Amino acid sequence: MTAHLLIIGDEILIGQILDTNSAWMSQQLNLRGFRVTGKSTVADTPDAILDGLQQATRHADVVLMTGGLGPTKDDVTKKTLADYFDSPMSFHQETYDRMAAYFARIGRKMPDAMVIQATLPDKAVLLPNKVGSAPGMWFERAGKVFISLPGVPFEMQYLMSEEALPRLSARFLGSPIEHRTLRTAGEGESTIAKRIETFEDSLPENIKLAYLPSLGQVRLRLTGTWNDDSIPPNTQEVLRDQLDAKAAELHALLPDLVYGTGEDTLEQVVGDLLRKQNLQFGTAESCTGGYIAHLITSVPGASDYFPGSIVSYSNNMKMNLLGVQADTLAQFGAVSAQTVREMVAGALNTLQVDIALAVSGIAGPNGGTPDKPVGTVWIAVGNRDRIVAVKHVFARDRAKNIQLAGVYGLNAVRKFLLGAL
Amino acid sequence: MTAHLLIIGDEILIGQILDTNSAWMSQQLNLRGFRVTGKSTVADTPDAILDGLQQATRHADVVLMTGGLGPTKDDVTKKTLADYFDSPMSFHQETYDRMAAYFARIGRKMPDAMVIQATLPDKAVLLPNKVGSAPGMWFERAGKVFISLPGVPFEMQYLMSEEALPRLSARFLGSPIEHRTLRTAGEGESTIAKRIETFEDSLPENIKLAYLPSLGQVRLRLTGTWNDDSIPPNTQEVLRDQLDAKAAELHALLPDLVYGTGEDTLEQVVGDLLRKQNLQFGTAESCTGGYIAHLITSVPGASDYFPGSIVSYSNNMKMNLLGVQADTLAQFGAVSAQTVREMVAGALNTLQVDIALAVSGIAGPNGGTPDKPVGTVWIAVGNRDRIVAVKHVFARDRAKNIQLAGVYGLNAVRKFLLGAL
Repeated sequence: MTAHLLIIGDEILIGQILDTNSAWMSQQLNLRGFRVTGKSTVADTPDAILDGLQQATRHADVVLMTGGLGPTKDDVTKKTLADYFDSPMSFHQETYDRMAAYFARIGRKMPDAMVIQATLPDKAVLLPNKVGSAPGMWFERAGKVFISLPGVPFEMQYLMSEEALPRLSARFLGSPIEHRTLRTAGEGESTIAKRIETFEDSLPENIKLAYLPSLGQVRLRLTGTWNDDSIPPNTQEVLRDQLDAKAAELHALLPDLVYGTGEDTLEQVVGDLLRKQNLQFGTAESCTGGYIAHLITSVPGASDYFPGSIVSYSNNMKMNLLGVQADTLAQFGAVSAQTVREMVAGALNTLQVDIALAVSGIAGPNGGTPDKPVGTVWIAVGNRDRIVAVKHVFARDRAKNIQLAGVYGLNAVRKFLLGAL
Repeated sequence: MTAHLLIIGDEILIGQILDTNSAWMSQQLNLRGFRVTGKSTVADTPDAILDGLQQATRHADVVLMTGGLGPTKDDVTKKTLADYFDSPMSFHQETYDRMAAYFARIGRKMPDAMVIQATLPDKAVLLPNKVGSAPGMWFERAGKVFISLPGVPFEMQYLMSEEALPRLSARFLGSPIEHRTLRTAGEGESTIAKRIETFEDSLPENIKLAYLPSLGQVRLRLTGTWNDDSIPPNTQEVLRDQLDAKAAELHALLPDLVYGTGEDTLEQVVGDLLRKQNLQFGTAESCTGGYIAHLITSVPGASDYFPGSIVSYSNNMKMNLLGVQADTLAQFGAVSAQTVREMVAGALNTLQVDIALAVSGIAGPNGGTPDKPVGTVWIAVGNRDRIVAVKHVFARDRAKNIQLAGVYGLNAVRKFLLGAL
């Protein structure tokens, strides 16, 4: 089954806001066995929307639209769809009552425009929106489905997850499809590819492996499909077992790199390990300037294992708050194995934690030397028995060097906690 | 003049990567007087590209394509364009030499595939790519222009800025257009709209005001165009003067909210103020967990005014490192005016800085109470003479509450430095 995304909105066309909806929608559709064959973005005008609809239906079974449903835009999408499907509009009391309940719940006065919002095309199957005002709309014509959703990301995501996707799966038999994702940190795509070459070559034809790289990380996604025309009733189970086996095999080939599956993040995984091992953790950050503490505390409940951090950006802070020796700084510099080791020891002491991470480097764009170019980062992790220091040279721009130091820092903690560093 | 963006790439269609190119391209085209009337995303296949080209040319004078130029994708875009424009391909020595020089410069062996990369359609005007291998290509047919660019963001941006945009301006007389952007923090769209209602109503017809909200911030963009058919030679200057005057008028109406112009960020503006006033600054962070220190240190050269921070996530850290009194915590709680005031005093002392910011709140999703719901955040800023504390209730999700605390915290520092808090 194929789908086309029709993104409606001047604000996207002029580049005022970034369209993050369509990537999310593509992923979700893909997971359910729908292939997105095209996307288009059009202006908030009836002509542009009609033209977009006509183009979209040429190639796809399902057309998903976002945007143009708010009261401020004069409901241009809704009116255009009513015209397109030749549908009268009527006031819809149930929708109005739901909107009234919604506004009561968030403690805001319901705007008068909601009467217009509750006036809807008769031919639409309404998808109730519990997290906003405009409902989604589902139309059918000539065996094709048209779904209109609000452009506000969380409303769109709610309606996709709760209404559109389940209904699409029920309406069309998407080809059976299963995914397994392993998340790795610490090596690039090409190194991983070499290590799993034999595995990749041995994959049966119905299983594909995709490398999805991001900064310092690579997700490995196995996708299993059923290529045969006849689909026996237990296909999904067969696929599941097949993928579970292959995912386990892949994991066993990369035990040092795989930190999680699915939507896991490195900061969650580290947090879970700390909680399980009943350890308190802190950071001593120079070039990352608090970024790693921010990652750690982005996980709800981080206070269970994270009492705090020292951001020691200056040498004085390194000496005063972490007890780094003036001699060490003078002899080896702030970006050195010796300094990050002393920062770990100082953090264990100052923060009274069981395990600490220290990072010191040259984020750039200035401050590099021939010996220590921009992107040089020393990372140390340790407890009261043992401290390990590792050097990396990231050689990217300032923001990326900081992010990479975050990924490699957290991964070092993970490995240390597992006894693998 | 109108433009259509044709984004070529399976990786965008399946949602594997976010298309950030097209928003940037729209903005740049818009600044030069080209209106983007549509965008479409198609698969890496000749059929999909040809179909996309046909649709694109129906509505636009200029078609800008990105992607499908790399050697790994078998150059499908280039071959398809050669077919579409009925152009033979030949090896292009100059391009090959430039690629060889490029690979020599980055110290990498030139791959064999570069011979294919240097084989190009004869009918294309080549746009030399100094930051990568594949050149851009410019075709013309029936008065319309077709530009093909690599999909790698920095290569695309280089070729747009250095080649495509200047050539487009020379080829078409874009309508004169000028923009001025004021950046505000601390109030929402509707409050600002009320305060500048009279100003907005008084704007001449050729100047439009756009509200561009993001988390805790609103950009106000004035756009001036020339609507008349006759364009006198000094139009651009007239527009410039007109917009400068209106931007100054707008700024004067919102002196407390406007923190910068154009691409300024709050952390840059705060950093510049600190440097000018020769002050050292530090943070004491609880619920923001190092996020504000991270923002401050994302600006190159932050070490001039920022020696460090204390992330005091636990009560113990607040007491041990910042000298917050146990009584204060017991009586008023960690999220209180009293606690953030003591955190500021402690940070001034521990970090030996001239001015400090402290933040303590309930980021969520747990930890809220009827008195202090999730999103309650106390912010204090002060020096050795004076400490000011302010309460906010953001009531968003964890990540957004942290980001909002960052924006409001930095804005409080800005106002304090300007004597406005």
